[in-house]
Amino acid sequence: MSVLVEFAIFPTDKGESVSSYVSRIIKVIDESGVEYKLTPMGTVFETETMDKALEVLKKSYEVLEPDCNRIYSTVKFDIRKNRSNRMKQKIASIESKLGKEVKK
Amino acid sequence: MSVLVEFAIFPTDKGESVSSYVSRIIKVIDESGVEYKLTPMGTVFETETMDKALEVLKKSYEVLEPDCNRIYSTVKFDIRKNRSNRMKQKIASIESKLGKEVKK
Amino acid sequence: MSVLVEFAIFPTDKGESVSSYVSRIIKVIDESGVEYKLTPMGTVFETETMDKALEVLKKSYEVLEPDCNRIYSTVKFDIRKNRSNRMKQKIASIESKLGKEVKK
Amino acid sequence: MSVLVEFAIFPTDKGESVSSYVSRIIKVIDESGVEYKLTPMGTVFETETMDKALEVLKKSYEVLEPDCNRIYSTVKFDIRKNRSNRMKQKIASIESKLGKEVKK
Repeated sequence: MSVLVEFAIFPTDKGESVSSYVSRIIKVIDESGVEYKLTPMGTVFETETMDKALEVLKKSYEVLEPDCNRIYSTVKFDIRKNRSNRMKQKIASIESKLGKEVKK
Repeated sequence: MSVLVEFAIFPTDKGESVSSYVSRIIKVIDESGVEYKLTPMGTVFETETMDKALEVLKKSYEVLEPDCNRIYSTVKFDIRKNRSNRMKQKIASIESKLGKEVKK
Repeated sequence: MSVLVEFAIFPTDKGESVSSYVSRIIKVIDESGVEYKLTPMGTVFETETMDKALEVLKKSYEVLEPDCNRIYSTVKFDIRKNRSNRMKQKIASIESKLGKEVKK
Repeated sequence: MSVLVEFAIFPTDKGESVSSYVSRIIKVIDESGVEYKLTPMGTVFETETMDKALEVLKKSYEVLEPDCNRIYSTVKFDIRKNRSNRMKQKIASIESKLGKEVKK
């Protein structure tokens, strides 16, 4: 199984710039060992189970919780059986259909 | 603490109509005992901890998993310390600021 | 056609409490004449065309733009041909399948 | 001004595989001339105005509309004044804070 997750989490009580808080999240994800990709709007990662995906969300929340009074988060899941390595395959499939490389 | 969650989950391999699948989710949430509200676009619910919120997501996923090959889900969290009962209070606060009742 | 929209927009440079800003949005939507419902996590509204839906988003943005330096927004669309009045019908369909009323 | 958009749109009445439909969207975005990046969960793009961003959404919808009965879409906006080129700068800011390169 492949669980693809698009994920963003940030405090809303810290003013306009929050990259120091967001850095904590990327550190958690980077150290968790999951396949991931940072985007300008969040992080996309892939796990083999829903449990593992929810664990990454939980740990990400826990590094903000101690010093943030209000936290906002958005998550999207695309879960598909009998698949793996979709971090690369979904984009490759689009490129194959378009017959050209895209920006990624 | 108040964890407000806006949540939708549905199979994408079952054609145009999916209300029988969505019904399973509402049953899970209704029986979980959390405060919730069904909307035309998903369900909003409130828990006192992030753990409880993630548990509801996990259980919702588990009632679709057995017979769905592909599942899509969107989740938003608004987590705030030192608050409770925001299912009602957030709307009341808007109405108070507008000086009138709104549709809800 | 029925365009159902779940929509939230708020400034992230104004600290922890933003209900006075969110009130402006509800005012815009209320005065736009579209069918809507305020939830604790945003607003759900329905239009007959995508153009009308995008116009509501644009107007909502425009009442925050003058005095907000950073604005965050999430939007979900569920667009379906040959349907109307789904604000009520989607929930009624779930209740019919469950054989009971739900919280809404 | 910088309008960053994370965007996904797909039909839900076409079964499990929808990459041929999603390809149409990437073609629209690629040809629109906006700065963009395809991710495994959608597309992130940047425009200088909200009008231009909404125009991209509208055009994307229009290439699915003719032969899709039901379409689902999720959009997130991060709008910030006095900024530009955030497609690169947001990630660079995170890497600078972490003191290391991340996967992107």
